[in-house]
Amino acid sequence: MIVRIGPNTFEIEYEGKTLAQMMREVGISLDLPCNGRGTCGKCKVRVSGQLSDLTDTEKRHLSSSEIGQGIRLACQAVPTGDCVVSAYSSAGSAAGNILVEGTPMQQQVVSQPLVKKDVVSPPAPAMDDQRYHLDRILDSLAELRPSVDRRKANVSLGTLQSLPDTLSKSDWQLTVAHTGDCVIAVEPGDTTGEHYGAAFDIGTTTVVGYLVDLSSGSQVAVASRTNPQVAHGADLISRITYSSQSVESREALRSEIVSALNDILNELASKAGVAANRIYHCTVAGNTCMTHMLLGLDTSSLATMPYVGVMGRAYHDRASQLGLNIHPDGLITVLPNIGGFIGSDTVAAAIAAGLDGRSGTSLLLDLGTNGELVLVHDREMFACSTAAGPAFEGAQIVHGMRGSAGAIEAVAISPKGLSLRVINGGEPMGICGSGLVDAVAELLRVGIIDFTGRLCPPLELAGRVDPALASRVKEDERGVRFVLFSNSEREISLFQSDVRQLQLAKGAIAAGFSILCKRAGISCSEIDTVFLAGAFGNYINKTAAVRIGMLPGIDEERIVPLGNAAGTGAKMALLSEELLDRADRLAASAIYIELGNDPTFQDEFMNAMMFMEGAAG
Amino acid sequence: MIVRIGPNTFEIEYEGKTLAQMMREVGISLDLPCNGRGTCGKCKVRVSGQLSDLTDTEKRHLSSSEIGQGIRLACQAVPTGDCVVSAYSSAGSAAGNILVEGTPMQQQVVSQPLVKKDVVSPPAPAMDDQRYHLDRILDSLAELRPSVDRRKANVSLGTLQSLPDTLSKSDWQLTVAHTGDCVIAVEPGDTTGEHYGAAFDIGTTTVVGYLVDLSSGSQVAVASRTNPQVAHGADLISRITYSSQSVESREALRSEIVSALNDILNELASKAGVAANRIYHCTVAGNTCMTHMLLGLDTSSLATMPYVGVMGRAYHDRASQLGLNIHPDGLITVLPNIGGFIGSDTVAAAIAAGLDGRSGTSLLLDLGTNGELVLVHDREMFACSTAAGPAFEGAQIVHGMRGSAGAIEAVAISPKGLSLRVINGGEPMGICGSGLVDAVAELLRVGIIDFTGRLCPPLELAGRVDPALASRVKEDERGVRFVLFSNSEREISLFQSDVRQLQLAKGAIAAGFSILCKRAGISCSEIDTVFLAGAFGNYINKTAAVRIGMLPGIDEERIVPLGNAAGTGAKMALLSEELLDRADRLAASAIYIELGNDPTFQDEFMNAMMFMEGAAG
Repeated sequence: MIVRIGPNTFEIEYEGKTLAQMMREVGISLDLPCNGRGTCGKCKVRVSGQLSDLTDTEKRHLSSSEIGQGIRLACQAVPTGDCVVSAYSSAGSAAGNILVEGTPMQQQVVSQPLVKKDVVSPPAPAMDDQRYHLDRILDSLAELRPSVDRRKANVSLGTLQSLPDTLSKSDWQLTVAHTGDCVIAVEPGDTTGEHYGAAFDIGTTTVVGYLVDLSSGSQVAVASRTNPQVAHGADLISRITYSSQSVESREALRSEIVSALNDILNELASKAGVAANRIYHCTVAGNTCMTHMLLGLDTSSLATMPYVGVMGRAYHDRASQLGLNIHPDGLITVLPNIGGFIGSDTVAAAIAAGLDGRSGTSLLLDLGTNGELVLVHDREMFACSTAAGPAFEGAQIVHGMRGSAGAIEAVAISPKGLSLRVINGGEPMGICGSGLVDAVAELLRVGIIDFTGRLCPPLELAGRVDPALASRVKEDERGVRFVLFSNSEREISLFQSDVRQLQLAKGAIAAGFSILCKRAGISCSEIDTVFLAGAFGNYINKTAAVRIGMLPGIDEERIVPLGNAAGTGAKMALLSEELLDRADRLAASAIYIELGNDPTFQDEFMNAMMFMEGAAG
Repeated sequence: MIVRIGPNTFEIEYEGKTLAQMMREVGISLDLPCNGRGTCGKCKVRVSGQLSDLTDTEKRHLSSSEIGQGIRLACQAVPTGDCVVSAYSSAGSAAGNILVEGTPMQQQVVSQPLVKKDVVSPPAPAMDDQRYHLDRILDSLAELRPSVDRRKANVSLGTLQSLPDTLSKSDWQLTVAHTGDCVIAVEPGDTTGEHYGAAFDIGTTTVVGYLVDLSSGSQVAVASRTNPQVAHGADLISRITYSSQSVESREALRSEIVSALNDILNELASKAGVAANRIYHCTVAGNTCMTHMLLGLDTSSLATMPYVGVMGRAYHDRASQLGLNIHPDGLITVLPNIGGFIGSDTVAAAIAAGLDGRSGTSLLLDLGTNGELVLVHDREMFACSTAAGPAFEGAQIVHGMRGSAGAIEAVAISPKGLSLRVINGGEPMGICGSGLVDAVAELLRVGIIDFTGRLCPPLELAGRVDPALASRVKEDERGVRFVLFSNSEREISLFQSDVRQLQLAKGAIAAGFSILCKRAGISCSEIDTVFLAGAFGNYINKTAAVRIGMLPGIDEERIVPLGNAAGTGAKMALLSEELLDRADRLAASAIYIELGNDPTFQDEFMNAMMFMEGAAG
């Protein structure tokens, strides 16, 4: 479920927790004098969305006026679906100040989309009022929205051509969908109840779409597809190579991704019972290569030195120009890039993390097929990209697999022995990224892997490692391996080469944040918060990740998983004109750092491959 | 030929006159101490275009630097085609101040088109300069033009998709065609020498197009076509009726006019040897009905009370959206309307007349199929439309015809008798508008027509009219007529019904300007200048027109024919971004007056039908 708290949005697995528990887990401490027992009534929050019914405890502590305003006790209310916490009193705020209003930003996320709908009732034409049809509509609109420039607002030919027909059905009550500068639709009657937008996160592997009610701000449907371009290669370079073959292959990739978006739009519309022409705006986040391919842009220069793409700023157009099946005059906004491969997915994640509004020093780490890092310090932002991803997605790992059913997702070694957690239970079929990180961290802890990443052969373990564990270390012509699981049918092991892959990946990430810190003039120990974007961040064992040095060595509670932050950011931008602007400013102001250009990168990388806690610091 | 002098443009028949003579005729007096004999050298002007060679007199008076700047003596230089006088010293200016620079407005007409071309040479990408392709181009452009917003300028998908290919051909020298807000083209190399626009005047009967070199401001070709929509009726009401039959018929009218524009564009491009993709902007002037039909808009409500159209403001779009064959991302601007049927042709004519910049009180009269009137007084503008046209175009006149070969275009009665002037000479085939006005004015003067418009029967003429003239008045079952010409094959006569038609037309016009004056709170005698737009204004006998009361009774030299002022205005708007803005302001600020709504209209009309000089005043 999606829980928005103040400026931040969190994707939280439903577990029947109270709001107070959820908020604590994401790092927001409420004032709970009675420690959540419901006796003090101090933990008032204003919340909307899907929640458990009022408890008797709440009815005792809340006035009917408070109940009318959506006030609940955080220690009592249990979210049962998406909800928005718009005001709360955090621990340490002035006594008696029960509710701190949400920041302006958060309020705009809820209610200020780029595409607005307004009902106008212009007077019918008469001999003493011969204004043109369009003028009388825009005059009425400008009365409601003084920012509308009646003489300049862009109105499509289609809208103009159908205007007399629209008016004949309207009885002079009309709904205008518009952005202020641009009129998208003029509809007969009051259609403000049907006001939707779609947000997309186009990943190299997966495309996710969200249908959002732009008037309430709530998500009404979600749908996803495998990116059909995987047929031309799982990784970006294969696709760029394919795309560069001919104009036709570039067009094939474009058309495939557009079809996927339209399939998702159809599914979203049908799930929510919404007509396609009531969807007025799409926002899109994706890496540079994905958004280039969506726009049919040549990507070949992205793959060769000096790695320069065609365009990085936001792309605004009528969605029909790209072939999307929403309202024929609806808009599309492809969010802006920071630079190089650091695309709008990272910008969207940074918006979801509220990075541009944060004081202090935070690191955003988005681990997908690539690894993108954004460091914000003193409101200055630095970003870089590393080729970190494949190991975490199971590629190039001997028994690697994606984080799906059958994957070992967690590994623990205790005095009782080795224990594995397998997704959906049952016998393991392979190991996924979080399992890999866990396994290496645990083997490191018990001394089966040394600080150089060497998997010690059985002979070296005698006497200093528990014999039951040591017996799992095997050596043959394939080298040394640690057997995680075996039965008569299969064996799942960690190989020396797997450890090396993980070292390369975590070394690249650690070198990345180390260089970002150096550019910001700080030490890695000054990072006070790490945001983890991407599904991987939800599953990774934070202790293990810190132990192997792939995350800065900070307290676990300051490591905040955001889930699909790119999708969340795209949804937030759909809901807030101000956030669209902020995404532009963020993308334009963030300083893009090409690691390959940094003279210290090789040293940092070699150093960071070692397994020493804080090795990169 | 087209001669532009300062802010005004004149269409002047070529007659071998010197510039000084031409300028005097249009009311601009130069300081000519030697009275044009070429001895003082004071009448220096800066002029470009097609002119006679330098005379020996000029070579004596002008320095080589002056010659290099395009300075000529107005008493010596004879235009041989279109030209532009950009600076001159008018009589009465300070002694010694040889050249007065043109007004800011005039300079902008010459050199400040909406669509500009700039050459940029951005640095090639490098590892220490990884800006996206578009960014580096827009960064360079913004250095030249600080008004360009690098992050917001609209760039089409087509331009983005072809950018890498363009760059590969460019060696990093590129020409950008843009408006500041919108990039139209990015071309390899320096293409500033190929920078064209097209201006159209879409008349109900005739469509005229002009190809203009946007860098020099000169017209390079002109072409025209009969409006193919005439197949659905000569007049607007027939076409509206046809258009209202079905969506298909509306589409047929749209597609016909677009084809005519494309035919004209092809002819213009081929005459001037210009590639279609070097034409970046089209401006269009036309009456409300014509521009609605070009945009495919429903016109049915224009024909029924309260006569309201779909849209009156300027329409801006990519020309390809309308199907025009210019640069695929080129722009079209359909100029704005004032109200009702008073369309962008009238706005363009008002711009050509410089109406919005004038002090004093001026009347613009545009006589086409309809008659449009604009009165400006104290910078306030009033406009109305009358159904005046058919009589002047020969329709509903027994022997009427258009102003083409064989038409009687002038009629004079002297003591020697009746004399006729026939277009292209030879025997007359009919009578056109200017001949009709002349004939009625002369017959009125000699007393054959009385002040009520009655053609006196032969019996009433005896004794008071020259017998030779009186013998031309015949009476039979068709009523009374005046025989202008007869031979064994044909007779061309003026019938009583023709006089009535002219009375209706001139009555409508005179009632129109009378009511405009009343709304401005002035008397018609306060009008100091009358501008006549349309070809008719070039041919009409001003004395005759004043005598019959269809023009206000002012000095002939204050009646200024502008020729095809709508076309001229469309060209001027093409050449000047500021004029485009001024057209918007003019259209928005002019007060549209529906004559049918004015309670005094019927009285004014009845009164103005009479033949009394100044009857309408």
